[in-house]
Amino acid sequence: MAQRVVIIGGDAGGMAAASQIVKGNPDASVVALEKGRWTSYSACGIPFLVGGEVGGGVERLVGRSPQKHQANGIDMRTGHEVMEIDVNARRVTVRDHIGQRTYVEPFDDLLIGTGGSPVKPDLPGIDLDHVRRAHTLDDAADLLERIERGEVRHAVVVGAGYIGLEMAEAFHARGLRPVLLDRGPQPLRGLDPDLGRRVAHSMLADGIDYRANEHVTGFNSGSVSTTSGEIRADVVVLGIGTSPNSTLAAAAGIELGINRAIRVDDRQATSVDGVWAAGDCAEAVHMITGERVHIALGTYANKQARVAGINIGGGHAISQPVLGTAITKVVDLEIATTGVNTANAASAGFDPVVQTIESSTRAGYYPGSSPMTVRLVFDRSSARLIGAQILGGLGAAKRIDTCAVAITAGMTAEQIVDLDLAYAPPFSPVWDPVAVCAREALKAW
Amino acid sequence: MAQRVVIIGGDAGGMAAASQIVKGNPDASVVALEKGRWTSYSACGIPFLVGGEVGGGVERLVGRSPQKHQANGIDMRTGHEVMEIDVNARRVTVRDHIGQRTYVEPFDDLLIGTGGSPVKPDLPGIDLDHVRRAHTLDDAADLLERIERGEVRHAVVVGAGYIGLEMAEAFHARGLRPVLLDRGPQPLRGLDPDLGRRVAHSMLADGIDYRANEHVTGFNSGSVSTTSGEIRADVVVLGIGTSPNSTLAAAAGIELGINRAIRVDDRQATSVDGVWAAGDCAEAVHMITGERVHIALGTYANKQARVAGINIGGGHAISQPVLGTAITKVVDLEIATTGVNTANAASAGFDPVVQTIESSTRAGYYPGSSPMTVRLVFDRSSARLIGAQILGGLGAAKRIDTCAVAITAGMTAEQIVDLDLAYAPPFSPVWDPVAVCAREALKAW
Repeated sequence: MAQRVVIIGGDAGGMAAASQIVKGNPDASVVALEKGRWTSYSACGIPFLVGGEVGGGVERLVGRSPQKHQANGIDMRTGHEVMEIDVNARRVTVRDHIGQRTYVEPFDDLLIGTGGSPVKPDLPGIDLDHVRRAHTLDDAADLLERIERGEVRHAVVVGAGYIGLEMAEAFHARGLRPVLLDRGPQPLRGLDPDLGRRVAHSMLADGIDYRANEHVTGFNSGSVSTTSGEIRADVVVLGIGTSPNSTLAAAAGIELGINRAIRVDDRQATSVDGVWAAGDCAEAVHMITGERVHIALGTYANKQARVAGINIGGGHAISQPVLGTAITKVVDLEIATTGVNTANAASAGFDPVVQTIESSTRAGYYPGSSPMTVRLVFDRSSARLIGAQILGGLGAAKRIDTCAVAITAGMTAEQIVDLDLAYAPPFSPVWDPVAVCAREALKAW
Repeated sequence: MAQRVVIIGGDAGGMAAASQIVKGNPDASVVALEKGRWTSYSACGIPFLVGGEVGGGVERLVGRSPQKHQANGIDMRTGHEVMEIDVNARRVTVRDHIGQRTYVEPFDDLLIGTGGSPVKPDLPGIDLDHVRRAHTLDDAADLLERIERGEVRHAVVVGAGYIGLEMAEAFHARGLRPVLLDRGPQPLRGLDPDLGRRVAHSMLADGIDYRANEHVTGFNSGSVSTTSGEIRADVVVLGIGTSPNSTLAAAAGIELGINRAIRVDDRQATSVDGVWAAGDCAEAVHMITGERVHIALGTYANKQARVAGINIGGGHAISQPVLGTAITKVVDLEIATTGVNTANAASAGFDPVVQTIESSTRAGYYPGSSPMTVRLVFDRSSARLIGAQILGGLGAAKRIDTCAVAITAGMTAEQIVDLDLAYAPPFSPVWDPVAVCAREALKAW
């Protein structure tokens, strides 16, 4: 009998696997069950849609429609929600919200790609209609409508991680002066504190009302309550982290791990034979600390799904440990990190050598050259690079990739100085800023 | 007695060593002899000065003036030309063009940083005043004056390497329709032929009159003669390659190597004890082919000078093999290469696996996203990356660094797919184009 594969979730963590499965086993029957209306969309694009940089409505963020998945031989069913996984009977119970019926779907292999959800704190007023998250295309459509109806004059964003910053920028791009409320002392806790403060100053200078150490106590119609008072709010967007959607898996007896993410091995296999997980619902392993982590990133969802798909299709693939490489921008400031920051290096048992340099994105005399700060974190004993942070103008942040590759390769400071990186005046100073930072680190070892 | 060091040449190949020397041996007496007026300038910036992107005159390209070198404890002498090196008597004969005298300067260590010169073909009219090179700040000043006096309406550039393309772009930026004459069939011979043709088409579409397979036969007042006719020219710029300035070294009995570049070992030592060379006058070793090469790049001059300086100062440093990483742009097309192209891979004895993908610089829906082409060349037997070529819009080309690091680290296609590269919609598609290309290469292995 043909291999029966069921995929729960129509987004990257599930659907990126489908093509690998049918490639590995052309006879496989693949059923994909998505409770919502949309498949394969870029949640990462929502802030830019809300901000108006990306026009054309929520459909612009859809990478592959249900129809396209169908055309590729996937039995894609939207509006179908899995209510229960029975790992012994090897079947899922499905609620068809459109057909108003419930049925069971058997599987030989099951891929759980249920994703994650923005954390929703248990606070008074959390379910008010104007308190939104920037997670689904329905969220995006709601925010767009409110903006287009002219209802949004006072926007509050709660949480100063990547999504929080991007949503604050979105409201800024709409000509507002958003308030960004941060429970912690600095935005982007992956950055060292001093660099985080630079991001804060940059936001304040740009007209984003960033407020550190503010604890939200509740939401009211027209305002947000915090420990320091009331803040006007026509709309509130929560961006305080992502939790794995692992309730179904847990109920089925599948083992959970860190942060209640589904525990997987490096083949993306869960604790139950023939049941796999990938994406924001699953764990990963950090390359530098060796610890299990839950990091919700679209890149990991895609990569893990590829690995899961190859393995389900009868091949053999392994997920590599992750560095937590992340990149964003707030107005004109680009920001990126990879590996560990100074504090994390120390808490992971390294004796860090930390160097910071100020350089420029292009030759100093070339138009459009912007300041660029590079911080590299090395392990003193091995001299290997274990972390990097970059702030700067246009063209600064994507250079974090140079660092990510160097870390992955186990390169030392001396090896980074020697790298044959590209130079011409429109692209870089003659000594690439990353190499300069490694060179200066050697001087200060 | 204090160590006496003489440096010949006041540009990167010499001067980047000076600070290393005095750092290694604070008692060293360092005399730097430069025949021209300028020190430590960016020759790479000349096209952008001529094009008007960089304003402020030739001084803008000076990284460190003679006075600054003096202030750093270097006995910097401009207008002083070395006429002869006597390696047995350990001294150089110097002509002081300003003081109109000749003297000898003794050394314990000598660093030759004489640089390179643009190739000047032996053709009729080559010495006419309007036939220029884009090499020295005096060249730059001359071209700027001609443009500012309104004398340049018909500009011809000979040679379609990096400098040729950049000079053609410079005249284009001045509102002209320059003619770019190429002896070969495609611009930028480091690119595979089909990608070279794409660059040619892009230039033609932009209004740069690129002409392949054109042989120049002579220069006249007001025109250039080629095998296919006469081309009007108020000014001609030669950009047909760089030769090492090694005549002094050869006359002193110092061994030369490939392309008459000064032979050096990996410490930048020449065949004569205590005599060192760095920069455009010296050889390097290619990381992929293992062959000795002469590649005139400012990055190599700086790195080699650093190594030479450390060694002269009593330390120990090694120059690493090079990849020939190069980057440029013509109008809106960014272009970069590293390692070997397809033909060079084959001629070096590899069985190349070549993959090309079309992607975009940013998420497809994000404004400013431009097409981006990535070609990767792998060695079939080891699966290692050995070369890369990138063409594309803003933000495309500097990603060649990802490839350069991966090549240096000996990474395989599978390892490149797994790289934790940075993603957010303003910076990249969710699968980085370099990783996509590696993934597609695996499919086609």
